[in-house]
Amino acid sequence: MPDADDALVVFTPSGRRGHFPVGTPVLEAARALGVDIDSVCGGRGLCGRCQVDLCEGRFSKHGVESWLDHLTAKSDTEQAWETRRGPLCDGRRLSCSTRLLGDAVIDVPVSSQVHRQIVRKRAEALDIELDPIVRLYYVEVQAPDLHAPASDLRRLKDALAHEWQLSELENDIRVVQQLQAALRQGGWGVTVAVYDDRRIIGVWPGFQEQVYGIAVDVGSTTIAAHLCNLQTGAVVASSGRMNPQIRYGEDLMSRVSYIMMNPGGELTMTRSVRDALNALIVEMATEADVRVDAILEATFVGNPIMQSLVFGINPVELGGAPFALATDEAIDGLWATELDLVIHPNARVYGLPCIAGHVGADTAGMILSETPYLGEELMLLVDVGTNAEIVLGNRHRLLACSSPTGPAFEGAQISGGQRAAAGAIERVRINPLTLEPRYKVIGGELWSDEPGFDEGVAPYGVTGICGSGIIEVIAEMYLAGIINQDGVVQGSLAERSERVVADGRTFSYILHRDDNRTLAITQNDIRAVQLAKAALYAGIRLLMEQFGTQHVECIRLAGAFGAHIDVKYAMILGLIPDCDLEHVNSAGNAAGTGARIALLSRRARREIEEVVRRVQKVETATEPRFQEHFVAAMAIPHRHDLFPHLSAHVTLPSVMEQSGGGSSAGRRRGRGRGRRA
Amino acid sequence: MPDADDALVVFTPSGRRGHFPVGTPVLEAARALGVDIDSVCGGRGLCGRCQVDLCEGRFSKHGVESWLDHLTAKSDTEQAWETRRGPLCDGRRLSCSTRLLGDAVIDVPVSSQVHRQIVRKRAEALDIELDPIVRLYYVEVQAPDLHAPASDLRRLKDALAHEWQLSELENDIRVVQQLQAALRQGGWGVTVAVYDDRRIIGVWPGFQEQVYGIAVDVGSTTIAAHLCNLQTGAVVASSGRMNPQIRYGEDLMSRVSYIMMNPGGELTMTRSVRDALNALIVEMATEADVRVDAILEATFVGNPIMQSLVFGINPVELGGAPFALATDEAIDGLWATELDLVIHPNARVYGLPCIAGHVGADTAGMILSETPYLGEELMLLVDVGTNAEIVLGNRHRLLACSSPTGPAFEGAQISGGQRAAAGAIERVRINPLTLEPRYKVIGGELWSDEPGFDEGVAPYGVTGICGSGIIEVIAEMYLAGIINQDGVVQGSLAERSERVVADGRTFSYILHRDDNRTLAITQNDIRAVQLAKAALYAGIRLLMEQFGTQHVECIRLAGAFGAHIDVKYAMILGLIPDCDLEHVNSAGNAAGTGARIALLSRRARREIEEVVRRVQKVETATEPRFQEHFVAAMAIPHRHDLFPHLSAHVTLPSVMEQSGGGSSAGRRRGRGRGRRA
Repeated sequence: MPDADDALVVFTPSGRRGHFPVGTPVLEAARALGVDIDSVCGGRGLCGRCQVDLCEGRFSKHGVESWLDHLTAKSDTEQAWETRRGPLCDGRRLSCSTRLLGDAVIDVPVSSQVHRQIVRKRAEALDIELDPIVRLYYVEVQAPDLHAPASDLRRLKDALAHEWQLSELENDIRVVQQLQAALRQGGWGVTVAVYDDRRIIGVWPGFQEQVYGIAVDVGSTTIAAHLCNLQTGAVVASSGRMNPQIRYGEDLMSRVSYIMMNPGGELTMTRSVRDALNALIVEMATEADVRVDAILEATFVGNPIMQSLVFGINPVELGGAPFALATDEAIDGLWATELDLVIHPNARVYGLPCIAGHVGADTAGMILSETPYLGEELMLLVDVGTNAEIVLGNRHRLLACSSPTGPAFEGAQISGGQRAAAGAIERVRINPLTLEPRYKVIGGELWSDEPGFDEGVAPYGVTGICGSGIIEVIAEMYLAGIINQDGVVQGSLAERSERVVADGRTFSYILHRDDNRTLAITQNDIRAVQLAKAALYAGIRLLMEQFGTQHVECIRLAGAFGAHIDVKYAMILGLIPDCDLEHVNSAGNAAGTGARIALLSRRARREIEEVVRRVQKVETATEPRFQEHFVAAMAIPHRHDLFPHLSAHVTLPSVMEQSGGGSSAGRRRGRGRGRRA
Repeated sequence: MPDADDALVVFTPSGRRGHFPVGTPVLEAARALGVDIDSVCGGRGLCGRCQVDLCEGRFSKHGVESWLDHLTAKSDTEQAWETRRGPLCDGRRLSCSTRLLGDAVIDVPVSSQVHRQIVRKRAEALDIELDPIVRLYYVEVQAPDLHAPASDLRRLKDALAHEWQLSELENDIRVVQQLQAALRQGGWGVTVAVYDDRRIIGVWPGFQEQVYGIAVDVGSTTIAAHLCNLQTGAVVASSGRMNPQIRYGEDLMSRVSYIMMNPGGELTMTRSVRDALNALIVEMATEADVRVDAILEATFVGNPIMQSLVFGINPVELGGAPFALATDEAIDGLWATELDLVIHPNARVYGLPCIAGHVGADTAGMILSETPYLGEELMLLVDVGTNAEIVLGNRHRLLACSSPTGPAFEGAQISGGQRAAAGAIERVRINPLTLEPRYKVIGGELWSDEPGFDEGVAPYGVTGICGSGIIEVIAEMYLAGIINQDGVVQGSLAERSERVVADGRTFSYILHRDDNRTLAITQNDIRAVQLAKAALYAGIRLLMEQFGTQHVECIRLAGAFGAHIDVKYAMILGLIPDCDLEHVNSAGNAAGTGARIALLSRRARREIEEVVRRVQKVETATEPRFQEHFVAAMAIPHRHDLFPHLSAHVTLPSVMEQSGGGSSAGRRRGRGRGRRA
C-alpha cells in the first residue's frame, strides 16, 4: 500500500506510473520513471520545453475532482515565464515548476517529447526520430575559488556531468576563448551547445533558447535550402536561388571544361557557390528572425561535381573516365569555417556521401527520403536532370546508375524550349480528328480554347514550351497519329491540316502562332526527346535486367521534372516502364528532403552511410547492354502486352497496330542484335 | 631439424631468431619475428630507414665464412639508393632489398629502430620512447577502375590498411582536396602523414622522407623554439627571440593591465606573439633547409598568461583573484591554422596543461623534463623569474606554488641592475680584510684584479650588474661582514674602507667606479634582494611544511637564473634550503625540454596530463603561513644546525655568531609568532 503522503502519477502516452512523495515536482517524477520529456534549462522554468497537460485526478478517494486539488497552483516561476513568453495554452503547466499534491494523470504532448518523430511524407516509410546532433544545455557553474583552483572549463564540465550526465566532453578551442566572458556575463549561468553528446562547440551567457540548422540541395541550376529548428524539427524558412556557377557553363560538363581551360577556375566556382550559400543563409535567417550564429549545423546534398565544388574539391577527375570520386564517404563534422559559411564559427557541416562518379549525394538524399531500402516492394526512383539518376531496388538489394539524358527534358535543345517559367506551355491536348491543339501555360488558369485565355497570359504571352509540355505534345502527336512510333512526322497529314508543314526535308507541327512568334515542334525536337527518353529508359532497363525483373512495383519521380509531368504521358512516350499509375508519384525535392532528414537525425546519417555502401553501382558508359537498350528504346512503345497498366488508361493509336513489328525502330534493333551476334 | 633450404637468422640486440626459406628478404624475416625495425616506404628501397648491420654467418656448416655468402649481393635497389643518397656506411645494407642465402646474425642499429629512446639529461630518469604523434607512410594505391567505382580516398585507405595495418582511418577535408592531384602526380604512389594512428592529415605525391615538429617555450621576455625531426628526435635547428609583447609591458601584470585599459588589446598581443612565432619558424626552417609544410606538429609551454595569449584566450581573469584559468586541460589536436601558424595547414598543436592561475604550462614542462613524479627522492624544482614557480615532491605526492619574487633576481629594481648581457658583472669576491672587491663581467675572461681586465672588457666596459652578480655581491658582503644578517650595511666600516659610503641615512658599498659610472650596492638594493629571496624561500618553506618535511634531497634550478647563479651563494643568502651542494643543479631550460619531450612522445603527453591532475596547488596569496615564512626569511640565515651542508662549504662570518638568536630578524620573527598566538 502506498504511503498516505504518496501520490500516484500516471504519464500518458507512455503509460509509465509510480508513487512519489507529495511535493515532488512533476518533471522529477517523469525523469525518475524514464518518461521522455524535454528540457533545456534543467528544470529552472526558463525554457518552457517541459510543458505537460494535466488530466483529472482520477485516483482520488473522494470521487471525481478537479486536478487543481492534486497539483500545486501556478507557481511564480510559471507566471514569470508567462510574462516573458505569453500565456501557457489552456491546461498546460511547466512540469518543472508544478508539484504533486495527489494522484494525477499527466499527458506529455508531442511537442514536449525529446524523441518525437519527424513525419516522412511517404505513409509506408517509418518515421524518423528527431535526434539532432547538436543540443543545447543550460547549466549553472560554480564560481571560481582561490582555494580550489579548477579552471572555468573544468567547473563547466563538472556541472554538465552533474546536471546532464554528459561526461568526458571534449571542446573546441573557441569555446575556451569565449567561456570566461560568457560565464561572468551570464552570472555563472551559461547555455552550451553539445555536438554528438561528446564535444562542446558553443557557449552563450545565460539562457539561450533555440538552435538551428540548414539543409541545402546544391543543384547545377538551383540551390535550395531550408532553415530548421533543431529542437522541433520545424522548417522556419526556405529559399532558393540560381546557382551562380551558371555563368561558367550551363551544364556540368561545360563547368568542368571551364576548370580545365582556366587553372584555378575551381576556386572561382567554389567561391561563387559559397557566396550564394551565404546569401541564402542571411535571407532565411532574416525571414525567420534567427541570428546566424544560432545556426549550428548544415547538411549538404548535390551531384558529385556540385558537392565537390562546395567542399573545395577540384572536380576535374569527374569530367572523364574513369570518373574517380575523391571520396565516397560522408563528409562528417567539418567546421563551417572551412566552407567560409557565415553561420556560427563552430557550426559543423555534414555532406551526404556520393555513390559514384555520376551518382551523387543528391541521389543518396533521394534514397534517404524515399527509403527503398526499407521495404519488400520493388521501387524505381528517378531524378531527371541533364543526367538522370536512377535507383532500383528494395530492402534486399539496391542498384543505381546515371544515364546521360541531356537537357531536352528541361526544355533545352528544343527549338521553342524554355525553363519552366511563366509563359511556358506546360499542358497540351490534340484533337485526333482535326489535329487542332489546345494548351495551358504556366501562370495561366485557362486552356487556350477557353474564353479569356489571351487576357490571362497577357503580361507575358506564350513564350515557349517547357519540359512537361514537350512530353505532352509529343505524346499527343503520337496519339493523334501525327508521328509514328519511330517519331517521324507524317508529312502526308499536311494535306489535312495547316498545322503540319514542311520544314526542309522533314515536317513540323505548328503548336502556336501569334504576332510575336511561331512555336513549332520540329522533327529535330522530336529526335532530341527520343534520345533523352531512350537514355532514361535504357538506364532503367539496364538496372531491371541486372536486378532480374521485368516489373517494378512503384515509381517515384524526384525533382521539378517529376513534379510537373503527367506520368501517363511519360509512360506513353516510354520514359518509364509500365506500372500501375496509382503507384507512380512525384517525390518532390527528394534530395533536399534527404538533406533535411540528415540534419534532424543522427541515426539517419548512419543509415544512409551504411545503405550507400551496399548500393551496387552500374556504369552505363561501358555496359554494352546499355547501348542495346538505348537503340531499342528510341521508338515509342507499341506492344500492349508490355504495358498492361498503360493500356487500361489510354487507347493507343491505330498506326501502331498497323506498323506492328515492322517499324524502322524494330529493324534498327534487329541490326543492333546482328552486330553483337 | 630445419630444412636444407632454410636459413637461421638471429637479430641483435633483440635476440629474436627464426628459420626462413632461402631468398626471404631480411626485412620480411624481421617483421615476421616482431623485430623493431623502421620503414616509411614499406620495403620499396626508397626511405633507407631499414638499414641493418650484417655480422658473420656463424652458423655455417662450413666453418667461418664471410657473410657475403649468406646474403644476396648488393641489389640494384640498394645501388640506386646509394646513387641518390650517397654510399651506405661500411657493412650496412637495406634490409628490404637484401635476401637470406644462409644463416646470419643481423644487428638492427639504434637509428633503424622505430621505438628508440630519447635520452633524457638526468641519468636517473627513465628515457622516453620516441613515439611522435605524426608518422609518415608511403603507399602505392590502385588506379581507379570504371567498373569498381571506389573513390580515391577509399582506395588510399584500403592500401594503408593492407600495407600498414592502419584501419578505420579518419581524414582531414584538406587531404581530400589534395588527394587526387597528389595520386596522379605521384603515379599512384603517395606519402601520407597519419596523426595518432587514426587520422590522415597530409598527403604528398611520391615519396616524402621527413616530417618535423617544433617545440616552443613562450616566456614573458624570450620565446625559445626547437625544430625537431620527428623520425629521429634530433633537434635540427634552435632559435630564440624577444617576446614582442614587451612593448605592451615589461612584466606580466603590466600586460594584463594594458588589456584591461585597451579593449581588444588581447588580440593585438596575440597577433604580436604569433607573428614572432612565425618569424622563428621561418628562421629555423631556413637554417635547417626544411620546408615549412613539412612541419606537422607544434607543442607549446608558457606561463598561464603567455599560454592564454598564444591560444587566443583573454588573460584578464589571471590579473586578479581568484586567478581563474579558462582551462587547466592540455590543448590537444588543435589545427595550426587556428593559431595562424605558417607550418603545414593541417599541422596540429599541443599545449601542455596549465596547473593553476599562477602555475603554468611552463611548470608542467619543467615537471615533465625533471620527472620528480618518477622517483622516491624528494625533489625541489625552482624556476625563478618575476614569479618563482616552485614544485616539491616525489612519486607519492607533488605540490606546486608560485611566489611573487619580483624582478630583482633579473637585475630590475636594482640601482645598477641590468639583464644578463655583455658588460654585466656576474661574479664577485670581496676580501674580508681589506673589503676590496674583484669581479668578472659577462663577455670577459679575466677577474678585475688581473692584468688585461680593462682591455678585455674594452668594447663595452662595465655596464651594470646582473642577477647572479647581485646574489654574489650581497652574499660576499655578508661573508665579509659589510652587512649583518638583517642586511644592514654597517656604517661603522666607513672608517676602515672608502668602499663603504654614506647615502642619506643609510650606507652603500661601492663595487665599481670608472670615468663613466659608479656602481654602488645600496641599502635599497639589498632590501629588494631580501624581499625577493624571502618570497622565494617562503614559498619553498610553505611547500616543505605542507609536505611535512624539513629537508629536500635534491634541488633543480630551471631557466637562465638557475644556469648562471653559483648555488653556494644562493644558499648563503637563503634563496634555497640546505641541501648537499652536489645535488643542487641547473636544469637548463626545463620548460622548453618538456615541450620537446611532449613533441616526441605521445606517452609523455598522457603522462604529464595525468601528473598535472594530481599536483596539489598551494596558493601563497591567501595562506597565512606564507606571510610568516616570508617575514622569517627576510634575514640572512645564521643557524648552522639548519644548514649542515652549507657549513661544510663556507665559513660563516663571526658577526652571525655574535648576534646569535638576538638579531632584529629573530625579534621580528618572534613578534610574528606572537601575533598568531
